[in-house]
Amino acid sequence: MTTYKDAGVDAALKAELLKSLSGRVQAGRPEVIGGLGGFGGLFRAPTGKEMVLVATTDGVGTKTELARMLDRYEVVGTDVVHQSVNDALAAGAEPLFFLDYFASGVLSPDIFTRVVDAVAAACAANGCALLGGETAEMPGVFAPGAFDIVGFLVGAAEREALLDPAAVRDGDALVGLPSTGLHTNGYSLARLVVSRLAENEGRSMVDALRAPRPLLGGTLGDALLQTHRSYLADVRALRAATEVKAMAHLTGGGWEGNLPRALPAGMGAQVDRGAWTVPPLFRFLAEAGRIADEELWDTWNMGIGMVAVVSDPAAAVRAVPGAVRLGSVERLRAGAARRVRFA
Amino acid sequence: MTTYKDAGVDAALKAELLKSLSGRVQAGRPEVIGGLGGFGGLFRAPTGKEMVLVATTDGVGTKTELARMLDRYEVVGTDVVHQSVNDALAAGAEPLFFLDYFASGVLSPDIFTRVVDAVAAACAANGCALLGGETAEMPGVFAPGAFDIVGFLVGAAEREALLDPAAVRDGDALVGLPSTGLHTNGYSLARLVVSRLAENEGRSMVDALRAPRPLLGGTLGDALLQTHRSYLADVRALRAATEVKAMAHLTGGGWEGNLPRALPAGMGAQVDRGAWTVPPLFRFLAEAGRIADEELWDTWNMGIGMVAVVSDPAAAVRAVPGAVRLGSVERLRAGAARRVRFA
Repeated sequence: MTTYKDAGVDAALKAELLKSLSGRVQAGRPEVIGGLGGFGGLFRAPTGKEMVLVATTDGVGTKTELARMLDRYEVVGTDVVHQSVNDALAAGAEPLFFLDYFASGVLSPDIFTRVVDAVAAACAANGCALLGGETAEMPGVFAPGAFDIVGFLVGAAEREALLDPAAVRDGDALVGLPSTGLHTNGYSLARLVVSRLAENEGRSMVDALRAPRPLLGGTLGDALLQTHRSYLADVRALRAATEVKAMAHLTGGGWEGNLPRALPAGMGAQVDRGAWTVPPLFRFLAEAGRIADEELWDTWNMGIGMVAVVSDPAAAVRAVPGAVRLGSVERLRAGAARRVRFA
Repeated sequence: MTTYKDAGVDAALKAELLKSLSGRVQAGRPEVIGGLGGFGGLFRAPTGKEMVLVATTDGVGTKTELARMLDRYEVVGTDVVHQSVNDALAAGAEPLFFLDYFASGVLSPDIFTRVVDAVAAACAANGCALLGGETAEMPGVFAPGAFDIVGFLVGAAEREALLDPAAVRDGDALVGLPSTGLHTNGYSLARLVVSRLAENEGRSMVDALRAPRPLLGGTLGDALLQTHRSYLADVRALRAATEVKAMAHLTGGGWEGNLPRALPAGMGAQVDRGAWTVPPLFRFLAEAGRIADEELWDTWNMGIGMVAVVSDPAAAVRAVPGAVRLGSVERLRAGAARRVRFA
């Protein structure tokens, strides 16, 4: 007789894992109603003056492949929460609740538990309820050993607290918040660089990732597996210190792909690259991979993970450790092909 | 020089696809604020007496593999919306907004467009705003040609309209709503059956799926690629006709895995299998795959996609075409290993 397990899906294992998980997941917020096990997670709608929900979804891309190579699964569990928190912050909201989606060809209890435990811990640390999730076992769809972790986050803000590019004016100041590394973007390019480096050095990718690199003050693997930083505390401090008009989370697409999302039509950004030191990791990847300058800045954050348009840049820089004044908003020249102009 | 595209990620293609998509996506509801392009989708929070948000996430599993084999990508786009709508309904809520996550190794404009267009159409048909989404290109993570489509839905209900298993009593009636087929569950098992059938018949899986099957009144491929039915209209009619105390959406885990989620502790369900005719597809798969009876009912819905615990089953059956009275809630016998008892 044929069973579901013969088809590569172990429903009993999945049920057992979810059961053990429910003991570790903390609801985390008083608005949560009931526990896991329902067909949807329940959360009391925010009340107040014209509340707006902000919803966002994202995965961590092929950073999962590096996590796998170096047995550091926790990192991507933290990342998937932090990146969504930052997207909510960029819209002007604070996080309310989160749901995760974990998919792989064959369910590994060890990997699943490590990733989802990190998701739960990051939710708790960011004041966000872990309201539900889904675990998919998809034989034949994923490459052997590969997995995907995706997050969905809902936040909220009063309508008048939402950030809006329409409020941005010519001459407004830009302030940047430092990143911890690549965060969760451009990992396919980084992996290509590592694989070529490994080939040149005549060793495996894992060995190339584990070798000490003087320029990095450590290994390439450690530098690449820094967690995507949550800007929750920084953004709170920033908004307490000065009016913030708009904000850009520098993710996939780098500077040109994201900074214009915080600007009104017809406006551009002038950014002084000398305002901060591009971290060694980016310089290392650029050299090892022979990557053109524009490609670098169109793919990675280059050391700045979040850019805010603020009224009082001096107050902003005082309020947030590591924050730097980057430049200012300017009117776009006629026919300008790009909206971010580096100076 | 190395580019991101060398690494298998075509950021420009993705940006172009998203741009063409934004023209086709209808916001769909008056609560939506602004357009695509922000860091989060914005939606006015529901106001009213004690509103509760209901959040759910799910993928369509390896039904994507069959869609691929038969070039019927639209089906899984519709499915991913309908299954989430049904989860919200089972909690007692109606859908507000939806976000999709589409992932593949190499982004295919054709497949992406067909899936996401179907997502947009299904959202519109179910009165749900398509508020955002993410498109991930993950070289090396997916098997060649494979993809994943995941949905995230938020619905809402007044707190007193939420369904609650705690309200269910011994003797309450169970009413079932017909399914269109496997919906989105147990496709790995179905594919295993099809591959063995193809082997026995000495032909390819695609040919086995396309051959006419007298028992099915059509092809196996058509029967397997019916869309997951949305119960929105049926559940509205049901709740208008009778008090509904709780509801179970029969998804992964079949009857035993889902029906108890609509029951309080200590209660079970007595279900008369003679109340409806198990559709030919399930009988065909059971025979072709030599699948044991318990495994069938623990994996698939067997023709009933939603079960409601109602006060007035006669009114329920009159109100919804195809609805059948299944049996009733009963106190669990001491030591019972299962909570669904078929009679």
